Amino acid sequence: MRTMEIQGAAAKAAAVKMATITTKLKNDALLRIADALEQNKDSILAANGLDMAAARDSGMASGMMDRLALDDGRINDIAKAVRDVAAQSDPIGRVDRLERRPNGLAIGRKTVPLGVIAIIYESRPNVTVDAAVLCLKAGNSVILRGGKEAFNSNNALVKIMRNAVQNAGLPVDCVSLVQDTTRDSVDELMSLTKYIDVLIPRGGAGLINRVVSNSKIPVIETGVGNCHVYVESAANIDMAVEIIFNAKCRRVSICNAAETLLVDRAIAAKFLPAAKARLDTKNVQLRGCGETAAILGSGVVPATDEDYYTEFYDYILAVKVVDNIDSAIAHISKYGSGHSEAIVTNDYTASQKFLDEIDAAAVYVNASTSFTDGGEFGLGAEIGISTQKMHARGPMGLNQLTSTKFVIYGDGQVR
Amino acid sequence: MRTMEIQGAAAKAAAVKMATITTKLKNDALLRIADALEQNKDSILAANGLDMAAARDSGMASGMMDRLALDDGRINDIAKAVRDVAAQSDPIGRVDRLERRPNGLAIGRKTVPLGVIAIIYESRPNVTVDAAVLCLKAGNSVILRGGKEAFNSNNALVKIMRNAVQNAGLPVDCVSLVQDTTRDSVDELMSLTKYIDVLIPRGGAGLINRVVSNSKIPVIETGVGNCHVYVESAANIDMAVEIIFNAKCRRVSICNAAETLLVDRAIAAKFLPAAKARLDTKNVQLRGCGETAAILGSGVVPATDEDYYTEFYDYILAVKVVDNIDSAIAHISKYGSGHSEAIVTNDYTASQKFLDEIDAAAVYVNASTSFTDGGEFGLGAEIGISTQKMHARGPMGLNQLTSTKFVIYGDGQVR
Repeated sequence: MRTMEIQGAAAKAAAVKMATITTKLKNDALLRIADALEQNKDSILAANGLDMAAARDSGMASGMMDRLALDDGRINDIAKAVRDVAAQSDPIGRVDRLERRPNGLAIGRKTVPLGVIAIIYESRPNVTVDAAVLCLKAGNSVILRGGKEAFNSNNALVKIMRNAVQNAGLPVDCVSLVQDTTRDSVDELMSLTKYIDVLIPRGGAGLINRVVSNSKIPVIETGVGNCHVYVESAANIDMAVEIIFNAKCRRVSICNAAETLLVDRAIAAKFLPAAKARLDTKNVQLRGCGETAAILGSGVVPATDEDYYTEFYDYILAVKVVDNIDSAIAHISKYGSGHSEAIVTNDYTASQKFLDEIDAAAVYVNASTSFTDGGEFGLGAEIGISTQKMHARGPMGLNQLTSTKFVIYGDGQVR
Repeated sequence: MRTMEIQGAAAKAAAVKMATITTKLKNDALLRIADALEQNKDSILAANGLDMAAARDSGMASGMMDRLALDDGRINDIAKAVRDVAAQSDPIGRVDRLERRPNGLAIGRKTVPLGVIAIIYESRPNVTVDAAVLCLKAGNSVILRGGKEAFNSNNALVKIMRNAVQNAGLPVDCVSLVQDTTRDSVDELMSLTKYIDVLIPRGGAGLINRVVSNSKIPVIETGVGNCHVYVESAANIDMAVEIIFNAKCRRVSICNAAETLLVDRAIAAKFLPAAKARLDTKNVQLRGCGETAAILGSGVVPATDEDYYTEFYDYILAVKVVDNIDSAIAHISKYGSGHSEAIVTNDYTASQKFLDEIDAAAVYVNASTSFTDGGEFGLGAEIGISTQKMHARGPMGLNQLTSTKFVIYGDGQVR
């Protein structure tokens, strides 16, 4: 067998055991991971130092460097997040309703693990631990395939986790790191149908599209967020200004940030100058349509059609003046990625129409798109924001890392 | 655009409208379909006559011919099934819990349609109507790709449905039939990621494997059922005999039929002769291991390893004597397809172990696998039995043809 097949088979064998392991044992393993991360800071930071040095040598951009870097405080944060997951209730083994059928059979649907989850992600080493412990708590095995930039950091973190789970009595292969960081290993993962139940790519649109197009294993798409804020004609202008400012500027590098502002023509002349004044405090570049430029003057870069498709990950905002709510919904349907969409309005009918007709994971009335997050939604830590309609949509917490099986209690029934 | 792309685009445009159509209108459309099927029996039967004649000429097996045939009574049954779906409650627009977060946001998860569902199926024309109305009631568009043997029948049925939905005020392209019945159209469907949200293959293992391996669209696997009945040492022998007889013989051609009988060595000498006597009444061929043959004598065909992997669709049953419950679970894990698995036992620990450790859509204690069915489980009509872990597992009724979106009501919240 090839290396990756061996790793897959080991993960699958571990998953069979993981499915019936007690909550107490899983929590114990997670707490041991948290302790071990804190106790082994030196080795983690040494490994991270190697990655950082290589990144510097290769001329990595400072934003990327920041995502790659670990320090004492960040390791504490990771350990704290692990303890938070340990404190969440176990999503496995629940039967929501066990119902008696007329023939006496008692039938219920019980939550069970998905099995083996493979996660393909890019440079942030905290994902290595965050994603792994969510999978483990939900009784799954996890195969991590991180980016080459973070390989040394990831390797150190996974060694610590494997040691901790083994000490707790879990099968050691419930968590493992793919050692090959070339594209070959992604191709291999996508074909291991015998061993992997689900593949979750986390990263840019390029990676996600490649995995969706080529995987033979079911995929959960996460993270591409071309989000809109639509300021309807009956919007409260002050509220709308704060919402677009927050949706754009809270953190430009994450998927729930707004990329396009749509404004009703009826309110544009009043709203746009106020919005620009607020966005100027963060030097947000506006890429606007002709009407936007006519209202705001020379500070607006002309928007291309491509701009409306783009997730900028930057202090850049596309702007378009629209005729009415139908035009806004049509624009979002065409250019959006189905992540998070917001309307600002005090008109009841408009708010209901937007909630009904927008097809996205999260649809907001009078709030910033930046709330699309497992913690904010009350789901706890999440493994990503699913933008697909199958299995799970929106923030994926512990409950979304499970499947179900029907359990049927009889006393000799035949049909 | 190619023909299939045009059909896909039309279905997608219809799906946007379908998502917000009222329950009353959807039910009205379904009732019109039921009426129209009854009123147009002559044209349906004429079209079915063409398919039957072609089938006879091509030498189709009588079992297949029977699946293809329509008559007055079967059309009435199809119409009745449509009215039953109309009578089910609407799965769309439900918010199970709308919760207030500490910051005042009210967040709920609302059920929404999946969008465009494509169904690839084989010769039974009743599937054309059954599958279509389930998709429509759940607010989806449906693209049907039936087998070439049933093309005339399917075309007649789809024409009647399109006419009925249009008369009811639904967008006509919410239901359509693929006119090309060559493999090319399956290949094209699998690549229409822009227009199709889910693909459901219904048919033999060959079709399903081909779709799972090649589709760029999310797939729900249905219907491959290599099901087991395991007679544990503490089984009630009479109960076990009736359960294996029913699981094998109720209908050999459907996916919940048992294909392999596993028997604990401790009970084999008492149980197997009793089981054989009962199975002999239907002339079931037994393909057994050496121990089975030693107990039952010359009436047993030696089983090959391949037999244990096979869904016979026939009066054939593989038999194996096992050491204990662990061997039984190991056998099922290796050879099973994750559909329906039953244990017969009066031992509490054994029953719990089987329920916990067997990884399948439906796990039974002391009942026949033949209950795995939407109606029997209380879910109503179903579009198939999902044997995968993602999205939905087991019988897929109306609720499994939906997705969700988060709806968030704010009053100016920013983060």
